Amino acid sequence: MEKLVKQKCEACRADAPRVTDDELPILLKEIPDWQPITEDSVLMLRRVFKFDDYQESLEFTKKVAALADEEDHHPAILLEWGKVEVTWWTHKIGGLHKNDFIAAAKTDTLNS
Amino acid sequence: MEKLVKQKCEACRADAPRVTDDELPILLKEIPDWQPITEDSVLMLRRVFKFDDYQESLEFTKKVAALADEEDHHPAILLEWGKVEVTWWTHKIGGLHKNDFIAAAKTDTLNS
Repeated sequence: MEKLVKQKCEACRADAPRVTDDELPILLKEIPDWQPITEDSVLMLRRVFKFDDYQESLEFTKKVAALADEEDHHPAILLEWGKVEVTWWTHKIGGLHKNDFIAAAKTDTLNS
Repeated sequence: MEKLVKQKCEACRADAPRVTDDELPILLKEIPDWQPITEDSVLMLRRVFKFDDYQESLEFTKKVAALADEEDHHPAILLEWGKVEVTWWTHKIGGLHKNDFIAAAKTDTLNS
């Protein structure tokens, strides 16, 4: 499989396939810092990024927003003092699409 | 009482007074679009701002972050496609200080 960071999110339809139970652990291995979580029965990927400085948190938020526009896939970004929590999932399918793993892997590269 | 938007957040100590049950409805009248909510037994103020465009949501997020730095008081800002949810509370006292109402009133002015 090509590395996630090298792939690009594709346009997602309501009938696009969710990531299967078999694929999930394989994909998670490539993004070990992300937690699969469930909110309102929707499976999502979440990672908290910590920062010592509010400006750094804001700069990171802006980078994630730019990535979102580039991929045309938009996460929830929770900006607080000292941390930014990013959550990826695919609204149209009410769960996780491969796009979310690609986007999570690319989010990791913004923090290096 | 001087209008909230004309006031400035003051440095908050752990023993600073929480807004009382008597003050709460009076202060809420000045910020009618904000909901008092409770999360983990902490009273907070929350408002959702809607936008048609992701860039507009991001611009608003940046304005709220600039206000936060100016007041040295930092909210939770949840940026998603089409909306920004802002939540003010005072960590140090685990509840609502008058600062939060001042900050909420000033947040409203950023959306006009």
